[in-house]
Formats: sequence, structure tokens, C-alpha cells
Amino acid sequence: MIQPGARNSEFLDLDDDSLYHLGLKKTPELLNQLREIFGDVKYVCMGGSPDRAMTFGNKAAEELGISTPEGGVQTIGKTERCNMCQVGPILSISHGMGMPSLSIFLHEVTKLLEYAGCTDVKFIRIGTSGGLGVKGGTVVVTEDAINAKLEPTHTKTMLGQDYTYPTQLDRQLARDLLDARGVEKAVMGNTMGTDDFYEGQGRRDGALKPPYTREDRMAFLHKAHDEAGVRNIEMESTEFAAFCNRAGIPAAIVCAALLNRLEGDQVKATPVELAQYSDNAQTVVINYIRQQLEQQQKVVEA
Amino acid sequence: MIQPGARNSEFLDLDDDSLYHLGLKKTPELLNQLREIFGDVKYVCMGGSPDRAMTFGNKAAEELGISTPEGGVQTIGKTERCNMCQVGPILSISHGMGMPSLSIFLHEVTKLLEYAGCTDVKFIRIGTSGGLGVKGGTVVVTEDAINAKLEPTHTKTMLGQDYTYPTQLDRQLARDLLDARGVEKAVMGNTMGTDDFYEGQGRRDGALKPPYTREDRMAFLHKAHDEAGVRNIEMESTEFAAFCNRAGIPAAIVCAALLNRLEGDQVKATPVELAQYSDNAQTVVINYIRQQLEQQQKVVEA
Repeated sequence: MIQPGARNSEFLDLDDDSLYHLGLKKTPELLNQLREIFGDVKYVCMGGSPDRAMTFGNKAAEELGISTPEGGVQTIGKTERCNMCQVGPILSISHGMGMPSLSIFLHEVTKLLEYAGCTDVKFIRIGTSGGLGVKGGTVVVTEDAINAKLEPTHTKTMLGQDYTYPTQLDRQLARDLLDARGVEKAVMGNTMGTDDFYEGQGRRDGALKPPYTREDRMAFLHKAHDEAGVRNIEMESTEFAAFCNRAGIPAAIVCAALLNRLEGDQVKATPVELAQYSDNAQTVVINYIRQQLEQQQKVVEA
Repeated sequence: MIQPGARNSEFLDLDDDSLYHLGLKKTPELLNQLREIFGDVKYVCMGGSPDRAMTFGNKAAEELGISTPEGGVQTIGKTERCNMCQVGPILSISHGMGMPSLSIFLHEVTKLLEYAGCTDVKFIRIGTSGGLGVKGGTVVVTEDAINAKLEPTHTKTMLGQDYTYPTQLDRQLARDLLDARGVEKAVMGNTMGTDDFYEGQGRRDGALKPPYTREDRMAFLHKAHDEAGVRNIEMESTEFAAFCNRAGIPAAIVCAALLNRLEGDQVKATPVELAQYSDNAQTVVINYIRQQLEQQQKVVEA
């Protein structure tokens, strides 16, 4: 699954691995079991919230006609750090908020599916975000991930040194997702990933007096929109894109905008509206997967 | 609660605030209720895991003789992004993994307690970490937080610009915590905070081939230990210290080491051992709070 040059063979070919945050292990005895459970996974769908990972699993099962145990899909592994469930070719897992938390699950899920012998897997992040020049409820499919300095790169510090990686995503996958949509409003645009929800996104409603003015805030958000093509802001996109690029895994990001950040900082939609917004992003991804499965079915029948 | 120069008065003095990730609101009607519920909080105890936030609440209640509802302490607010509960003067809340996630809860909890009119509040992070030159199970009380480049600073990008803040913690509070301990092994030392669990901490057991060798890894970890006084590595310390410094809130970090990173990368302790390690860090904090409450009682009686 990982492209040969990027695969950490020195470690992955050893007998044992503790996928600590998933609460799963690889041992010579467990390897066949991992292959049986996870071997057919083709779509890893990741989002911040543990609840939403399960909601997505159940919605996908219902809409794709995949049977589930009574009471709905079940979690796999430990639930202290994430919720993970499997529905047919879909692995649905939560990754918490922010790139550091996401990064843990990217590594561990990739190792898990590598051990399970999976092939042709796509990673799709389904999230929530602040919109930029788009209304609350709009679904944004990411073209490129852009960092907090409006560059299409992601920098990681390892052993005291900075390493910078590109953050392009799979264009065809993004177009296919946008085409599949099934929701009222969806657009394609760049997604800015930040390491902070308040000051890192130019909000002025945090606890501390920010070191920038209202005018600085508006000027930067307009620049992000007009010059960098940013249509939404969240806290995961550049890590997600950089990791998948390195691994050679086709990847896409589909986020609901909860508000238009050009108009304010506070999330004011009602819980019912917010649930609908989240559902919009999930719908786009499920419609895409349905189309893919139908196409494969046609190929098999032909 | 926030020192006057750092307080975001322009926003905090408005009537309404949606503490989005806590699922709580401030309105003129709700303000008295917030004061009644949270006004007496003196210790904010934060940790990564939602389960552990509740375990800590129940343990604190039991050990400090504070009554709880049948079935144990109850969550307050929405549980999609964190678990929060209150036990006497303690607010126990989870902050997820990594600085970006932590930062959200630092802002929202600080706003909440500011609205509630709290005074003399201390923030204590209770976490897990990789030890450096210390055995699994050791509790490390942080002297200073150190970033991934071994500097005692934390840099945040806001509107495309970098801002760097100091990361010293409250020395007296750290000493008091260490004195209070009640566990077999506790040490004081610097804590390195990174934005990544795998490559950001020099691990060699991630999915991708790391751009550094085994020798690079050992050289850096030894340098961190010998020259920078690092005794453990986690993913929150510098954001936590920088925020509390800016706000003027006395703060401390108490983490259990799950393994000695000079000896390996994988967490190999059993679930029972890991629970004990976590419990060690909680015990130190509860013993400290007990001593503080007893001292106050003596002052009242005198």
C-alpha cells in the first residue's frame, strides 16, 4: 500500500508491532486475523469526532445496503483515543483535533492496512471547518492544502531539524467527489490548515488579547481568499496531505463549512443545523463510494 | 483570573459567547448559573484522554472525601470533543492529543472560569509521556517546557506571522507537587513538547521511512537528556506553558513516563501497568491538592 521508497521496511517487516493508540497488535499469530478483518478495506474515512466516526459508519452501512450487527456498527480496538469501525470496504476512524493527533492515526492506520495486505486504498478526511467566502452548510472539497503562511507545504520538526513536504492532493479524486455530491452546495477550493483554532485562525474571541488588530485579521482573511484561493480553514489538511503524498496514498479532504469567517468568528448555527452540515460532507463521500462500487459491479458483470 | 494586560477585554466583556467545544454558552441570563456552578474552582486538571478525566474526577472525589452523584461524577456540557466534570474545587477536563487540540480547551476553560468570576486558579496538566533516562512508571514534574528544537519557547503562527513566547512554569508549584508525591518514583526535569508522536519524537516505528538514522536518533535523545535536561517527551507542554505564561495563570505539568525512550520506541507495558502509571501521576496531584486544602483548613481554624 505504501510506495516502495517511502515504506519503513526496517520496522514494518519485523514480527511485532503495538499499534498503541488503536489498541491493536501485530504478532505472527494475529497476522492472519488482521488480514481477514481488514484485508478488503479500500476507503479510510477519517474525521475529528469519535461520535461522527460511528455516525458515518452507520450511515454508510444504511445507504450502501451493508448489513450491521443489531444496534449498529461496533467499535474495533480500544476507544480511549479514537473510535474505529468497519463497514464493507470502508474503515471509519476518528483522529481527534489538530495535526499532531491526526498524525498518530495516519501512521497507525497505514501500518494496520499494510499488515492486512490492503491494496488500492484511498484516504478521505471528512471534517468540519470555517468557510471563507462560503455560507455555513457548504461542502468544500479541497484542491490543495495550504499552511498558515499560505504556502502549499507542511513542515515537520524531527530531531531538531525542519523537513518540508508538498501538500498537493489527488485532483481526480477531488473532481470525482465533487461530481458525486448529492448536496445543495459544494465547491472546490484550497483549504488552510492551522495549528490553532483561535489565534492561529485570526479569531478575536479567544481568552487572550490577540497581538493583531481587526484590520490585520480582515486583510489576512481576504488575502487568503483572493490570492491563495482558500475556501475553508481547519486544523488537519497540510499534515494529512503531506503524509499521504509521502506514502503515495491517493487522498482527499471533504469538509462542511460551519460559518463564513469573512462574517464572524463565533459558530452560531444551532445543534440541528450543525448536524445537518456535518451530514452534508458525509453524504458527498458516501455518494462517491456508491458510484465507485456500482462501476466496479458493472465491470464484474460485463 | 487572567492578568489585566493579557485579558481579551474587547471580547470578554460582550454579553454573549459560545464556548463551542465545551458545548456551553454565556448569555446575560446564564451568567449567574455559570458563577454558581464554576465560581469556586481553584484547580483545573487537564489530561489527554476523556476516560481519564472522569477517572481522575472520581478518584479525587473519593480521596478528598467529596460526595458525588450515585454512579460517580457526571459530565458537564457536550461530550463530542472532551469530557469535563467538577469535584469541589477541581475542574477535570480532557484536552485530546497535541497542542492544537489543547489550545482550544485552554482558551475555552479560561473564558468559562473568567465568566464565573474565579480567582487564584491553578492549571495542572496530568498526562502520559515517553521517559528519557527514567523508567516506565516514573512521574516527571516539569521544570521548564522545551520545544522540539530544545529551546524554552513556543512559536505560534497568527495571520501568517510567527510569535514566540517563553515556556517557564511555576517553580514553587512544581516543588510543592514533587514534595506531595506519595508514589515510589518522581523526579523533576524538563519536558520536551513535540507536534508528532512518531517522527517528531525520533521514533523509528512509524509507517514511513524516517529521514534520519538510528545514530541520529540516539545522538539527539542523548543531547536532549544531557544538555537540555529533558526527562520526558509529550505533545502538549510548550503550548500549555506559553498560554499560562501569557495569561498569568500558575501552571504545572505532571506526567507518567510509559517507557524509557533511551531504550526503545514501542510502548510495551501491559494495560494494567499502563493504568498504574497513569494513576501514579493522578496520585501526586491529588496529594498536592489535599495538602493545600488541609493548610487552608488550618488557617480557617486558627
